Amino acid sequence: MTDRLLADFLAGRPAALARAVSVVENHRPGFDKLLGAVHSRIGRARRIGLTGPPGAGKSTLTSRLARTYREQQLTVGVLAVDPTSPYTGGALLGDRVRMEEIALDRGVYIRSLATRGALGGLSAATREVADLLDAFGFDRVLIETVGVGQSELDVARTADTIAVVLVPESGDGIQALKAGLMEIADVFVVNKADRPGADRLRRDIDTALHYRPPAAWTPPVVSTVGVTGEGILELFAALDGHHQYLVESGTLAVRRQARLRERVVDVVDQRLKARVWDDPTAAEWLAARLAPLAAGETTPFAVADELLERQFKRGHGNDGHA
Amino acid sequence: MTDRLLADFLAGRPAALARAVSVVENHRPGFDKLLGAVHSRIGRARRIGLTGPPGAGKSTLTSRLARTYREQQLTVGVLAVDPTSPYTGGALLGDRVRMEEIALDRGVYIRSLATRGALGGLSAATREVADLLDAFGFDRVLIETVGVGQSELDVARTADTIAVVLVPESGDGIQALKAGLMEIADVFVVNKADRPGADRLRRDIDTALHYRPPAAWTPPVVSTVGVTGEGILELFAALDGHHQYLVESGTLAVRRQARLRERVVDVVDQRLKARVWDDPTAAEWLAARLAPLAAGETTPFAVADELLERQFKRGHGNDGHA
Repeated sequence: MTDRLLADFLAGRPAALARAVSVVENHRPGFDKLLGAVHSRIGRARRIGLTGPPGAGKSTLTSRLARTYREQQLTVGVLAVDPTSPYTGGALLGDRVRMEEIALDRGVYIRSLATRGALGGLSAATREVADLLDAFGFDRVLIETVGVGQSELDVARTADTIAVVLVPESGDGIQALKAGLMEIADVFVVNKADRPGADRLRRDIDTALHYRPPAAWTPPVVSTVGVTGEGILELFAALDGHHQYLVESGTLAVRRQARLRERVVDVVDQRLKARVWDDPTAAEWLAARLAPLAAGETTPFAVADELLERQFKRGHGNDGHA
Repeated sequence: MTDRLLADFLAGRPAALARAVSVVENHRPGFDKLLGAVHSRIGRARRIGLTGPPGAGKSTLTSRLARTYREQQLTVGVLAVDPTSPYTGGALLGDRVRMEEIALDRGVYIRSLATRGALGGLSAATREVADLLDAFGFDRVLIETVGVGQSELDVARTADTIAVVLVPESGDGIQALKAGLMEIADVFVVNKADRPGADRLRRDIDTALHYRPPAAWTPPVVSTVGVTGEGILELFAALDGHHQYLVESGTLAVRRQARLRERVVDVVDQRLKARVWDDPTAAEWLAARLAPLAAGETTPFAVADELLERQFKRGHGNDGHA
């Protein structure tokens, strides 16, 4: 079944892409074989992250940008990373509707990615699925994520170029500073730039940039109005400009090697965890130790060491490593 | 040196507490011995998380609450978890100044905790340091964190009782819903309740609560004005009310066992990672494989498996487990 899926994927069938993304997203059997088999095809797509506070208009910008790329005959994969919980799930529905107009175009693929807990982190999942989109042949992979916390910033960092989208609303500049968005921006976007306060926000960004340590690249600040499309060509140009800088400075190769390094670290991490927790008796064994732990008769360290010894002794008969 | 530190800690010396927190926060040698040695003393403190968007007034409320506990002759440890980056470091300075008035009281200990990357996650660090404060004998441990992302919500979840602090400002209710704050709230606080829009926010919260799946506990909504202290006694009572519910329903024991389980999972995770990455030659070995990886000559899975085999073969001479 994976062989057939792989063949269809390599033949460029959209249905195979959708199935492959599901297999990888949920780490279903064969996901590693699939990712391994397409690995030699990655590295062609430019990965562009769009991040910023909720309500900054990232989805509209993403959709505008996708359309602009299509007008240049470039294909686009969009990965919307959604950190919402199961209970409030479906937050992307509105965004999806907005994207519908471009979703019928075969040169565009849109996928949302939910929180991945046990399977090893949201940024790991983003790297894996972005690899798939890259290998499938998309010229651009747009990664849209809300820039509100540590894990979400890690998602944005999986891109080659990061656009931080802000809007002229109360204290947005200061909030962005606090949230660590300033450090990761390669390009700033002042969206909804027709609103009052846009000039003030630009000045706040300029001021914040002055406090950045000296760097080879100074992020340009682009003003846009997502709903009308104003400024999208400037954003397009700024993203191209950063890509050119990445290539000429050698930074692109460095970023991509760092990402490959992270991919290996992710796999090591997942394999190690699986070694302990894929065994259903491990959780049972631990559950039986919670009462003595609560009573202070043993410690988390003693229990952890005992568990490791148990799992690795068991494993010896099964395979070589570990 | 750890023995001396441990003795001073057990004797209740504040300087020993500060040193112990540093040892644990940075995972310096002996941190596990220290945590293990005090493990039997944890479980007495009530752990209360205060979370919410930036600017909600969490620090002021925390400081007010600490003072109220002191008036009841209860000692308080405050753990301010700061996810800001190195570049924007020191964001807590303003809050610290605000807390200065209570900081001279020996019955209060205030500590900020920065992002922990390689050492295994911010929520793991929070659990460890909160254990120390608990073991030191504080009656209440207040964990203040900004509720803006997945990792930050995980920090809040380390508490027995979680107070979600919101302010009547544009769209705050909706944002909170999106950010997953609604699901984790045991108590809601409408802070800055003297501002316009406070009633609207209360209604938004009530509406959101209607969409929650039926549960044994319905979070009360408390209105406060942090700067004047209005409503602090009601918050105090609401937190006590939730604690009483936790005890009577048996939920407290369940939450604490879940936390102990997480502690073991943290340690297992850290030990496994250390087994691979504490060996400096592992990073060198991986660095040499990045070029073939980038060239598509090998895959992250093949490299990861090779690395695991390498590290675990090496390890066999050193110790029993793994």
